[in-house]
Amino acid sequence: MERKQLKEVVIIGAGFAGLWALKNLSGGPVRVTIVDRNNYHTFLPLLYQVAAAEIEPEQIAYPVRTLLRGFRNARYLRAEVERIDFQGKFVECGGQKLVYDYLIVACGSVSHHYGIKGAGAHSFGLKTLDEAIILRNHILSCFERASCEVDPETRKALLSFVIIGGGPTGVEFAGALAELVRGPLRKDFPSISREDVSISLVESGKRLLGVFNEKSGAYALARLESMGIKVLLGSSVAEVTHGGIGLAGGITAASRTVVWTAGVSGAPVPGAPAALVNGAGRIESDECLRVKGADSVYIAGDITHFVQEERPLPMVATVAIQQGRHAAKNILRQIGGGRPLPFRFRDKGTMATIGRSSAITRIRGIESRGFVAWVLWLAVHIMYLIGFRNKILVMINWVYDYFFFEKSVRLILPRCCDSPGQAVCLNRERRCPECR
Amino acid sequence: MERKQLKEVVIIGAGFAGLWALKNLSGGPVRVTIVDRNNYHTFLPLLYQVAAAEIEPEQIAYPVRTLLRGFRNARYLRAEVERIDFQGKFVECGGQKLVYDYLIVACGSVSHHYGIKGAGAHSFGLKTLDEAIILRNHILSCFERASCEVDPETRKALLSFVIIGGGPTGVEFAGALAELVRGPLRKDFPSISREDVSISLVESGKRLLGVFNEKSGAYALARLESMGIKVLLGSSVAEVTHGGIGLAGGITAASRTVVWTAGVSGAPVPGAPAALVNGAGRIESDECLRVKGADSVYIAGDITHFVQEERPLPMVATVAIQQGRHAAKNILRQIGGGRPLPFRFRDKGTMATIGRSSAITRIRGIESRGFVAWVLWLAVHIMYLIGFRNKILVMINWVYDYFFFEKSVRLILPRCCDSPGQAVCLNRERRCPECR
Repeated sequence: MERKQLKEVVIIGAGFAGLWALKNLSGGPVRVTIVDRNNYHTFLPLLYQVAAAEIEPEQIAYPVRTLLRGFRNARYLRAEVERIDFQGKFVECGGQKLVYDYLIVACGSVSHHYGIKGAGAHSFGLKTLDEAIILRNHILSCFERASCEVDPETRKALLSFVIIGGGPTGVEFAGALAELVRGPLRKDFPSISREDVSISLVESGKRLLGVFNEKSGAYALARLESMGIKVLLGSSVAEVTHGGIGLAGGITAASRTVVWTAGVSGAPVPGAPAALVNGAGRIESDECLRVKGADSVYIAGDITHFVQEERPLPMVATVAIQQGRHAAKNILRQIGGGRPLPFRFRDKGTMATIGRSSAITRIRGIESRGFVAWVLWLAVHIMYLIGFRNKILVMINWVYDYFFFEKSVRLILPRCCDSPGQAVCLNRERRCPECR
Repeated sequence: MERKQLKEVVIIGAGFAGLWALKNLSGGPVRVTIVDRNNYHTFLPLLYQVAAAEIEPEQIAYPVRTLLRGFRNARYLRAEVERIDFQGKFVECGGQKLVYDYLIVACGSVSHHYGIKGAGAHSFGLKTLDEAIILRNHILSCFERASCEVDPETRKALLSFVIIGGGPTGVEFAGALAELVRGPLRKDFPSISREDVSISLVESGKRLLGVFNEKSGAYALARLESMGIKVLLGSSVAEVTHGGIGLAGGITAASRTVVWTAGVSGAPVPGAPAALVNGAGRIESDECLRVKGADSVYIAGDITHFVQEERPLPMVATVAIQQGRHAAKNILRQIGGGRPLPFRFRDKGTMATIGRSSAITRIRGIESRGFVAWVLWLAVHIMYLIGFRNKILVMINWVYDYFFFEKSVRLILPRCCDSPGQAVCLNRERRCPECR
């Protein structure tokens, strides 16, 4: 097909939404440009395992260019988006101007701190691979430093870990961190006893895992507590400082590691009219996943504010996958002269794991807990992980962990994400912590 | 055994020499402290594969603390050595003062630039995992940038790669880089043709792989040239700049990637008397591997200047392993009231690989080349790689590469080791390149 007959489609973001949009545009009369600041797709559901030193970061990353190889008329551009001009129908990024006939904004979400003082500056995020690596390095550095720290107060703060947010990310990471600390790190650091280390999970709501029912929430609570994690329900964080956290009501806790999983908002979209962006940073879409008033601009994934049954859809992978697919199909319908169809999310289920051999699943409204749910969790995650080699490598790591209780990636690497031999690096800038 | 009867042994460096010293001190009447700036041991012979995106960095790293688990009376300290006081018999590091009865200095080697102007500032090293990650990210970034670069001169410089040094490291990396560029990257970047990319290997001597014989040197030359690599023999580098290199005689070449493998010197040992350190940065030892005039200080590995058959032993893993073992045994002899024994290196062989299915080995003075040598190379490297899990993972990557011609770790990760979307990061500082 001659190029002049091809419509230009630009996709911003190579996450679940962007990739599934790309897949579903394949073979259509389109030339696709997918833009992302990273040259790889990240399988975010397993990100917490990178931070807990269980798997290598590379095993949940897949080069975007490899994904493109099967597609004609598709290309990837590694860049940050500087501005979208909705009127002029072009995107400025990486010094280029990408003119589009159709645009899919799938740039995902970022940590949201609700204006809590110090949360942005002093807590660790867990939203990107870079952040997971930084957090893993930091946790291990805290142990290294604590093992030769003489001041008991400093030692205690180094070995106190606070996770803010009792949703799936917080619960999954808390469980994995407890296993890391009680297993391999206990053997690595014989001078640090179990009682020296404290892991706390702070949730403002009345139960954990609000997306599941009360029974499951109680199950998660019992499991975490059995792993030695202190769970504080109905507790709001008022402030995060260099030295720890302060809860509403005045309680403070000293900690050098405060991990924020309590809130996400849509990623900033430069050039998006402010009127379209709601309080959660999400852009409101019409029923067909288009930006209201811009028929050629679609949104998919976490950035999308889409209401179904009177509630906005959650920021999860399954929503992103279905929306990305639907947005692409609607574009092809429009190009073919047809009308785009309304989107409806089909909830195939939700899962969360709580350490080894234990998970909660909800499928078709029925929730189950325990070992069988955990096996299902493993299988689903392996199935959706991209890359045959990655599937094999992750499974090997899981087997090693399960049978040998080993989390093998206990490496402070690379060093530019850490400051060895000095005060534990406390700079939380997303790109590059201070290093000396 | 009561602690007061134990002798304090400090080992500086957790490389081959330091680890084999540790192993051989096990069970002795000693308390060992091993100090390293990284919390892992690096299997350096496979470092070039990290830089060529073939294996994950973590697969050639092994946590030191895991190695220590089997040892009584051994501990690890993560720190930089600030000063060794040979008179007072203590080591200052990480804010601590480690008093020793015996010291083993095994701090390895660093890139040595022979005073060549700009080589330190403008070339990439390949001596540590951090450097290998930075180099890998940089190579991939050059391709990303070149794929949308309009200026032909800039594009050419981005796609020109110069490796300085025709020894095993330079040859192995050149071969792996050529495979990366001609294989996976050709599929990833269809707009970049084979002719656009240039890889050059510059060697000041008359042949490659001076450690092998002439026939092997010629074999290596033929193999590399068949892979499209330009080999310049008898060529000395006069200068390295931001934009490329200048050879003695006036020839210049534009390149944004100059990799230095042409020289190494002993790592700096703070506090070592200048009279003991030779021009190659190595410390001269007596026949028993002790520092001359300091009966309780041993040196092992790359840092050691040990003459055998009128030549200093090379800086290779096999020498480091034997010296580390011997130094430890000599310490145990001294503790037991005996005399240390002279060291003699037993050359078990040398190997170098040149891309897939091809290697050169020298065993008991007999050199062989080709596929069988390559299989032997694979087997020996897997055997010496530490960690059963690492062996499995590396083998999987090798199988994947061999059968699918894929180098799977084509990820620019983490981003703090690269500056995306902007001018390709050119800062060569070992720790943390500039990032914006």
